[in-house]
Amino acid sequence: MLIEVGARARQAARTLARLSTEAKDRGLNLLADALIAHQAVILAANQADVRAAQQAGLSPAMVDRLTLTPARLEGIAADVRSVASLPDPVGETFESKTLANGLRAHKRRVPLGVLGVIYESRPNVTIDVAGLALKTGNAVILRGGSETLRSNRALVEVVHQALRAANLPVDAVQFIDDPDRARVTELLHLDAYVDLIIPRGGNPLHEFCRHNSSIPVITGGIGICHLFVDETVDLNAACRVIHNAKTQRPTVCNALDTVLVHRSRAAEFLPALVQMLSADGVVFRADPSALAFLASTPGPKNAAAADRDLALPESVRLAGPQDFDTEWLSLVLGLKVVDSLAEAMEHIHLHSTGHSDGILTSNEENARRFMEEIDSALVYVNASTRFTDGSQLGLGAEVAISTQRLHARGPMGLRELTTYKWVVVGDYHVRG
Amino acid sequence: MLIEVGARARQAARTLARLSTEAKDRGLNLLADALIAHQAVILAANQADVRAAQQAGLSPAMVDRLTLTPARLEGIAADVRSVASLPDPVGETFESKTLANGLRAHKRRVPLGVLGVIYESRPNVTIDVAGLALKTGNAVILRGGSETLRSNRALVEVVHQALRAANLPVDAVQFIDDPDRARVTELLHLDAYVDLIIPRGGNPLHEFCRHNSSIPVITGGIGICHLFVDETVDLNAACRVIHNAKTQRPTVCNALDTVLVHRSRAAEFLPALVQMLSADGVVFRADPSALAFLASTPGPKNAAAADRDLALPESVRLAGPQDFDTEWLSLVLGLKVVDSLAEAMEHIHLHSTGHSDGILTSNEENARRFMEEIDSALVYVNASTRFTDGSQLGLGAEVAISTQRLHARGPMGLRELTTYKWVVVGDYHVRG
Repeated sequence: MLIEVGARARQAARTLARLSTEAKDRGLNLLADALIAHQAVILAANQADVRAAQQAGLSPAMVDRLTLTPARLEGIAADVRSVASLPDPVGETFESKTLANGLRAHKRRVPLGVLGVIYESRPNVTIDVAGLALKTGNAVILRGGSETLRSNRALVEVVHQALRAANLPVDAVQFIDDPDRARVTELLHLDAYVDLIIPRGGNPLHEFCRHNSSIPVITGGIGICHLFVDETVDLNAACRVIHNAKTQRPTVCNALDTVLVHRSRAAEFLPALVQMLSADGVVFRADPSALAFLASTPGPKNAAAADRDLALPESVRLAGPQDFDTEWLSLVLGLKVVDSLAEAMEHIHLHSTGHSDGILTSNEENARRFMEEIDSALVYVNASTRFTDGSQLGLGAEVAISTQRLHARGPMGLRELTTYKWVVVGDYHVRG
Repeated sequence: MLIEVGARARQAARTLARLSTEAKDRGLNLLADALIAHQAVILAANQADVRAAQQAGLSPAMVDRLTLTPARLEGIAADVRSVASLPDPVGETFESKTLANGLRAHKRRVPLGVLGVIYESRPNVTIDVAGLALKTGNAVILRGGSETLRSNRALVEVVHQALRAANLPVDAVQFIDDPDRARVTELLHLDAYVDLIIPRGGNPLHEFCRHNSSIPVITGGIGICHLFVDETVDLNAACRVIHNAKTQRPTVCNALDTVLVHRSRAAEFLPALVQMLSADGVVFRADPSALAFLASTPGPKNAAAADRDLALPESVRLAGPQDFDTEWLSLVLGLKVVDSLAEAMEHIHLHSTGHSDGILTSNEENARRFMEEIDSALVYVNASTRFTDGSQLGLGAEVAISTQRLHARGPMGLRELTTYKWVVVGDYHVRG
């Protein structure tokens, strides 16, 4: 029964909230040690998951995602040690003030309480989330994917050993060891015990949680990201930024999806961009507005029947109706020519998921307007969208990238796993 | 169709987000003027609601809640002017930093977007919420109670006239002019257009919203509030604070519900407290642990059959099994004697709604432990729980008191109706 899991998590959360930073860090370091000490057991369990996945016909990419190796396990342990070394947000006081009547008030940072984390195949999430939760004094209920049930069981057993060794409550980290999807729905309704649901996975998982949860849900991790090349841009520099944003790690949410180019620079810029990125395997989906500028691109032409008459480069196709609303997560890039900053911003308004969008410009007024009017979690001027990342932005760790508007936006680090309480101290004050 | 209402709200929100503080304040002051200028129309509509409520047999207290008078309307207009005079949180920048690679990042405060506010009878909420939303650049969709449909219609018409006069989008404030409860459910699923649901009403409304919404919901306004009188307390001062917390305005969520008294002071304190508060009409629900200390209270004895043998004061009854889990919202006060601070905190942990709980003490260590271990939105030391209020705590205005843990806890003022975006400025920075 998940109700009992919830009640135990709530009880553990009370203990966790009062722990010293030292006690939590000691637990984290013991966990890192235990992951290495017990790697044989963990890797054997993971091998069983890998074999089952191969037999079930999962793609090599999927199998790779769920595979643990000694090196990967060492990386996971190193991440846990790194979380231990970060400052503890719990107990921080802020916004201290003395009111006119002499009452002294401040806010004090406290853990959120109990987290429910629902994730898909990657078993590193199990340890990652357990570590972030422990550091912030939150209890956590984990629901991993069925493909990694054996790995997760072994990992959670190691977490429990470390918690026991550190004299911390084992119920701080609980795992729903039942692949029935009904357990997910049950978890989403445990509002008496769980304070926050964090889904980690694709859009369908986020949608399911949002529509079926009576607990607040952090929505995020879906990025249709844009860069607008304005009329004042340094074209070479812009090519470098776009190359980075598209190709440095194309499978993640902060990778670039669409380039918008001001018409006055399109003839110069688009052929150069296509030539440079094609060399690294990028293929393009071009709006009709961009096509005319691409026929002059050097190199082999596209032989596809539909596009043959357009004399397009081999890597370019005419964009389909859904293409500008697609998060590519691969080496595909949308291209569109616009007549103005306003048109670029309107396109972003209509197609962005509110994750990461930027302008490449040498004009301060254009930068200012873009920063003011684009309402994405991260708005960039002259930088790659790939910087949307907790460690890149100085948060130290990251539990999710939020694209919703409540509580936290953008990368969520340790502090975003906390809330606050007001503390008000008087001298037997009464309200007049 | 609410979808169209949502789409218009979203469009209005884009315009609102870019308004200057001056433009918004001008709109607010025009609204205050219009409320006075059109008071005859508003009061006539309200009179029709009042007559219908009387005919429907609503209690005089309920009828009073929905009644507007010239004086009340002036008060509402004055509140709108007061919101206009508050600082505008939108556009504030904070947490500016320059990263090691030279990227400059900061957070900029922006409106939440579109608010859905679902409330019960009091028509002042219509103007109150419209004003707070306009000040913070949020569009709002209002769903008032059916008892005040005519009043709300008239008030929203005045809001629209003011918006037009101020050259602001009229869709900034929309009203669901349909008493069918199916519209509430529909609003709760408009997640494509609405960013936050704020219910204002009793527990059933909050529960309904939490369980039926695919949009984040602010839960709050339900307070089972405690004060613990420890062994070191100044008894006279404690009596004054408890008197204030219980009687100054007993119908609201921050009014006191339960007093816990350390056993070592109970014999002195409880009879004095009961005598003092009884004089102002307070009646008591006493745990058996408190009863023995009350037989010696001067004054008339309780003649009720069940309690007669206990020789209790007239105002005291034995507490029933649900009494310590009841938000009284009236002149009822629970009493219980405990043996220790730990027992007091355990009682609060089990029975508090996490709203406002305090300790009355002269001992610093007790105060420190209470502040650390009690996890309510507001934790008090030597002050009345009645201070849980946006204006009392220096927020200027208040849209709700949150008892949930995400986004905001305790009084929510203007700033709590905003979110932030990250702005990152580079020099054509790429991620390595």
